[in-house]
Amino acid sequence: MRVLLAGGAGYIGAHTAVALVEAGHDVLVVDDLSNSSAEAVARVEQITGAAVPLLSADARDVEALTAFVREHAPVDAVIHLAGLKAVGESVAEPVRYYDVNLGSSLAILKLMAAEGIPTIVFSSSATVYGEPESLPLSEESPTGIDLANPYGKTKRIIEEILKDAAAADPRLRAVSLRYFNPVGAHSSGLIGEDPTGIPNNLMPYVARVAVGTLDRVGVFGDDYDTPDGTGQRDYIHVVDLAAGHVAALERAREGYEVYNLGTGTPVSVLELIAAFERASGKQIPREILPRRAGDVAASYCDPGKAERDLGWTATRTIDDACRDSWDWQSKNPNGYATV
Amino acid sequence: MRVLLAGGAGYIGAHTAVALVEAGHDVLVVDDLSNSSAEAVARVEQITGAAVPLLSADARDVEALTAFVREHAPVDAVIHLAGLKAVGESVAEPVRYYDVNLGSSLAILKLMAAEGIPTIVFSSSATVYGEPESLPLSEESPTGIDLANPYGKTKRIIEEILKDAAAADPRLRAVSLRYFNPVGAHSSGLIGEDPTGIPNNLMPYVARVAVGTLDRVGVFGDDYDTPDGTGQRDYIHVVDLAAGHVAALERAREGYEVYNLGTGTPVSVLELIAAFERASGKQIPREILPRRAGDVAASYCDPGKAERDLGWTATRTIDDACRDSWDWQSKNPNGYATV
Repeated sequence: MRVLLAGGAGYIGAHTAVALVEAGHDVLVVDDLSNSSAEAVARVEQITGAAVPLLSADARDVEALTAFVREHAPVDAVIHLAGLKAVGESVAEPVRYYDVNLGSSLAILKLMAAEGIPTIVFSSSATVYGEPESLPLSEESPTGIDLANPYGKTKRIIEEILKDAAAADPRLRAVSLRYFNPVGAHSSGLIGEDPTGIPNNLMPYVARVAVGTLDRVGVFGDDYDTPDGTGQRDYIHVVDLAAGHVAALERAREGYEVYNLGTGTPVSVLELIAAFERASGKQIPREILPRRAGDVAASYCDPGKAERDLGWTATRTIDDACRDSWDWQSKNPNGYATV
Repeated sequence: MRVLLAGGAGYIGAHTAVALVEAGHDVLVVDDLSNSSAEAVARVEQITGAAVPLLSADARDVEALTAFVREHAPVDAVIHLAGLKAVGESVAEPVRYYDVNLGSSLAILKLMAAEGIPTIVFSSSATVYGEPESLPLSEESPTGIDLANPYGKTKRIIEEILKDAAAADPRLRAVSLRYFNPVGAHSSGLIGEDPTGIPNNLMPYVARVAVGTLDRVGVFGDDYDTPDGTGQRDYIHVVDLAAGHVAALERAREGYEVYNLGTGTPVSVLELIAAFERASGKQIPREILPRRAGDVAASYCDPGKAERDLGWTATRTIDDACRDSWDWQSKNPNGYATV
């Protein structure tokens, strides 16, 4: 298949591009490079030996997308990872988040209808579950109507749009992948997570403490009802996550489906820090801080549906993720920047 | 105040324009005229004697809106009635509904932020309540996460966007008005409901049967758990509804508020038909048909919050609405068309 990868220069996008090429697919990337780097796409080409055309454009720009898709026709599918993803920023700038995230999704659906592209795989998030009523989270678990932030709401709304679009168009194949917590990096050490500014997520934060560019990691709450009191998450290695996209793409059928992509194994903040210390051989200073508003005690999935329907399961451990993340971070202390 | 009325050439828009001018405000209209008529705005000018500038543009076109607003600066508020509203069509064409309804709302919010316009009054709908858990519906009644159609979902999503936008910007004054069932026409007989094609709503359908352009009215279900077995709705005279917009505009404070706009009195399908027969002196043939998917037995509101906060209450009865609707229909059998 030839696949348009929207947001393909980002963390998950670059790993998905590698997985697609390795599975025999052609990849085109559209990315506005606002929180990602053209260097990531160059490194995808380096890893795979394949040419990966990159269009630097906003995914809301239907005209630019149309010209790009026609230049590389026929395009068989879209993997849609474009969008803004910082929870706190989404609270401060809700209109921008709704505009970019909903607008890019609607532009992609319009492009698909006009160009006859039948398949879309969308990057949703476990955040759509809100505060879990019970664990593990299955695809049948209720999604939250009162999610704590616009970022999460955009994910839930885009899922609804895809479901309604598939109900209206029987040719459409639409899949939402609810990511749990992506971590790690490609084993080459050439691509990895490269957040702008202070990382919002735990693993890249810990990696920067290990490499010495940040002082210590804040642990938000150690009095949760969990074995060690710190929050538990379902950390999934980004290379496993990328393989999940390829499986979803190849197995997509007419209609709409949702899959959790996670390991099913909860790992606490302190366990993650300990794993990173083992992987890096560095001590990671930490500071216990108050809980953050909106954080849940624990979130992990039942990954059974993806295994049954897609033949996909996560195989990498938190130790694998820490090793690969450390390898990436120590080889690229400034990420993709050449400084 | 000078008010930009988006969707101001439509049924509710034209009546709101008259009410605004009569309350001493200046009105500008933007409308794409896709399901409305420039003649409606001309008749608003005829009724009020005021000039009402009309921009024929899509409300998603921020550049066109910006030029229009600057030409008529300063604009103090937006009343946002633009959007697509046919329930069945929204199921068949969900992407267009999400695109137009969400896109126009986001464009208006971007315009307001850029031009320093602090106040927005938005046309929401009782449809956001979904299947009522209890009646009457108050603003605290739960809104449905699993609404039956994309039209209703767009209303719920735009409410969420406005709430989040107001939380992020303390200067913003945002009000959602949840309309129950608007009916009737202006007492001049010059403006009224003029749906394209076969009417989706009961009152204009009944009016066309009375005037002879349609054969008979279908009654969808006579076995509901209501006094006469037919569905009960809260029909609100459009002139009362228009007054509600003026009250919401004038009383809007910083933050986000929601108001039901209805009478609080349930009226059944058979009661409405009987009222229309009295008003028109015509017999209205009817046919009992099966229930329609998605219809609820009864929906009516507690209008107390609008009365308390806005000093607004509906004063017109269903008989008033039928009289005015009949007057409009008989004077304008082809609506605004000159044929």
